[in-house]
Amino acid sequence: MPIQIIPLRGMPIVQPGDDLVKLTLESLESMGMSPDDKDVYVYSHVIISRSEGKLVDLNDVEPSRAARNFAEFTGKDPKVVEVVLSESRAIRRMAPGAIIAETKQGFVCANAGVDKSNVPGETIVAPLPDDADESATAIRKIIKERSGCDVGVIVCDTHGRAHRDGEINVTIGASGFEVIKDRRGEIDLFGYELKVKRTAVADELASAAELVIGQSNEAVPAALIRGYDIELSEESNASQLVRPREKDLFI
Amino acid sequence: MPIQIIPLRGMPIVQPGDDLVKLTLESLESMGMSPDDKDVYVYSHVIISRSEGKLVDLNDVEPSRAARNFAEFTGKDPKVVEVVLSESRAIRRMAPGAIIAETKQGFVCANAGVDKSNVPGETIVAPLPDDADESATAIRKIIKERSGCDVGVIVCDTHGRAHRDGEINVTIGASGFEVIKDRRGEIDLFGYELKVKRTAVADELASAAELVIGQSNEAVPAALIRGYDIELSEESNASQLVRPREKDLFI
Repeated sequence: MPIQIIPLRGMPIVQPGDDLVKLTLESLESMGMSPDDKDVYVYSHVIISRSEGKLVDLNDVEPSRAARNFAEFTGKDPKVVEVVLSESRAIRRMAPGAIIAETKQGFVCANAGVDKSNVPGETIVAPLPDDADESATAIRKIIKERSGCDVGVIVCDTHGRAHRDGEINVTIGASGFEVIKDRRGEIDLFGYELKVKRTAVADELASAAELVIGQSNEAVPAALIRGYDIELSEESNASQLVRPREKDLFI
Repeated sequence: MPIQIIPLRGMPIVQPGDDLVKLTLESLESMGMSPDDKDVYVYSHVIISRSEGKLVDLNDVEPSRAARNFAEFTGKDPKVVEVVLSESRAIRRMAPGAIIAETKQGFVCANAGVDKSNVPGETIVAPLPDDADESATAIRKIIKERSGCDVGVIVCDTHGRAHRDGEINVTIGASGFEVIKDRRGEIDLFGYELKVKRTAVADELASAAELVIGQSNEAVPAALIRGYDIELSEESNASQLVRPREKDLFI
């Protein structure tokens, strides 16, 4: 059986308080489908933030002195910079046009993930969910309640990265499955033990999902990946994908 | 239509000189399939190196003084270090257990991509193809000759990365399609122009493919991704995915 990447179409513009699982199940139903064990549901972070009401109106933001300084240096809107600073646990780099920050969860990305696209109203920005692992867990548990199925849930964001041009979709929140498949100890085709092989399957699933999400002019804010054999887990989450700075040989 | 990620099963252990396209078409045929326009064929770099005969027998390697020094510091086999050095255009970092190098194509990865797994014979290692873009182009043209179809071809490798734990599959060779989808100028759901959105679709396709490749104890060295609307191109290649060091804000 091939793996399928299925766009969840027909979802409305998500509003604060909306029931994302209900919208998910309705989208599946419109395709004559229902949840299955080991399904992976991948949600763009923006609809999570919006359903959780985590939106900031820039009209309500008073930029600090620091935000104004950084805005002048980077060429960004001081109010946006203020939101970026308040969403960061650390700043990695500032340059004209760019603020590379560590989010509260520890992910390194531009503008601490504060996103202006796909958010209604010129002055509204969508920071990342406060804890995307908790968001994913909440969704997973409701899917379990309503369908009986053990699924994986991912909250994704599109990040630039070191060494390679272009952005890719990665996992910032996860629940229900091992985000890293530890294959050390497995034997390869020729009988060797695989020495270094810890695959970040959650990130590969997120990247696969963006092949159907990512459409800017069509409402596909989520995807279902069916047919991949996730390793179910109650404990694993996206925080395990953060590489501590002191162990990072790639920077 | 969902996107499908289809494992190409039943391929034998590839030998130097083997016709990869023939093996690909036979695998498809065994599933009752044939090529289609905009198919994407993703090959693990190891089978490319093997079909091209790019294998090194460590018995033939004489480690230099430098290789012996670095081997002592990193705890690696001096002969393997010699091969890594000869495959690198630059070294980024050395540490106990690790050599992070820039490959001849400019990709930053551990051991310049020299791989010991899935290579026959205790003493044989598989460096990366000399030019994986050329390898991909050759395969694409033969598929076109034999099937008439315009497809995308990817040569992939599994890389560790900055900031995030675990490895993911990325593209080191590509042919036939735009590796980066430049979406600046597109309009989002709410009528905003997307300002920064250059998606590295080749890498997302490579990551998606590893959901079916990556099986260590089963011969799935390649995958077909069907249903993704690649933008056909004769010029684009994986070199466009190399971010020049001086423009890299993520290191």
